[in-house]
Amino acid sequence: MTGESRAPRRTGRRAGDSGTREAILAAARQRFASHGYTGTTIRGIAGDAGVGPALVHHFYGTKERLFAAAMRLPVVPSEVIGAALGSDASRPADNLGERLVRTVLGVWDATEVRATLLALLRSAVTNEQAMVMLREFVTAAILGSIAGAIGPPGEQVTVDDASYRASLVASQILGLAMTRYVFQLEPIATASADDLAIALGPTVQRYLTGDVHG
Amino acid sequence: MTGESRAPRRTGRRAGDSGTREAILAAARQRFASHGYTGTTIRGIAGDAGVGPALVHHFYGTKERLFAAAMRLPVVPSEVIGAALGSDASRPADNLGERLVRTVLGVWDATEVRATLLALLRSAVTNEQAMVMLREFVTAAILGSIAGAIGPPGEQVTVDDASYRASLVASQILGLAMTRYVFQLEPIATASADDLAIALGPTVQRYLTGDVHG
Repeated sequence: MTGESRAPRRTGRRAGDSGTREAILAAARQRFASHGYTGTTIRGIAGDAGVGPALVHHFYGTKERLFAAAMRLPVVPSEVIGAALGSDASRPADNLGERLVRTVLGVWDATEVRATLLALLRSAVTNEQAMVMLREFVTAAILGSIAGAIGPPGEQVTVDDASYRASLVASQILGLAMTRYVFQLEPIATASADDLAIALGPTVQRYLTGDVHG
Repeated sequence: MTGESRAPRRTGRRAGDSGTREAILAAARQRFASHGYTGTTIRGIAGDAGVGPALVHHFYGTKERLFAAAMRLPVVPSEVIGAALGSDASRPADNLGERLVRTVLGVWDATEVRATLLALLRSAVTNEQAMVMLREFVTAAILGSIAGAIGPPGEQVTVDDASYRASLVASQILGLAMTRYVFQLEPIATASADDLAIALGPTVQRYLTGDVHG
């Protein structure tokens, strides 16, 4: 890939788009694996793929979107979380937890997502480098979005408190994924999304907005 | 191992105890892996190790204790859970959740336990057979103990409800292990056991005894 021309390819190259996209995704997978999520730049990926950074931005927008495409995630986490937790006067703030659980289950309950999730977990548990990459991504994209939704400017939630709350949310959500999809522990594995939202929603709600400091 | 004599070895063989114990543990690891936890019997392990079942019972007591020894678990889960959740008039029932979180953290925070936990998770995530074995063990020994502590005879908790509650507890506890020890997500990775018991205890308490059905 690094041997390819770095000439801009956007103009008049529509027929080659899919090949270029594939080269970018392959370069992204290698960079994220070797440099971690934090240490990877769009510029670096573009260089490896032999294209200009502007083309990568044009195709994928943000680093998070490029990561999601490279890892075959069906959604962009911060966008889904933003939609679930975002402020909206028509939705009560006291069921944020339930909404987040429903959203996560809605994404994960699709079969192909489970396969992706399992592959990511498998690589993270068996490979230190993959674990660090996934941790950096979860911290930046997922915990960052949750913390951002909890602690908007002007509220009395410190950055440290928001990130503690976000990591507590992650502990319950990741535990749900492990028991329901990886270990398929009964009865949680076959419980309905409604039942789980009712059981786990108040937990996530308390971590987001309730008393977690005793 | 299967080629060894099946003659009783207990009498007058004290010097050979450690070799016999090792043969039993090796046979146990193989049987649990190939037959699962539920499908493994002490009699089968004894046969593979070329000893009598009574000797295996003498050395290890129960199947759970033998499993714990074979997997190098530092504790026997049902005993630790029983001690944390067991009824005791001097301890209030409304901090069962906090006690369970403290107990689990107390066991896991020992370095060698983390290595064992990680090895078990790694095998479960990468190998279907190992996952099934671990799931059967968790269901029988861990969820069984929790469900038993929640729903003693005479209480108005059905068996199904107790097992649902136990699997909810497992989702939070396993999620805590994954975020704190496997992914080492901050700030949960370096939070004190006291802080985590305060943050997560009420969650586990609600799963054990509170409203989980809406």
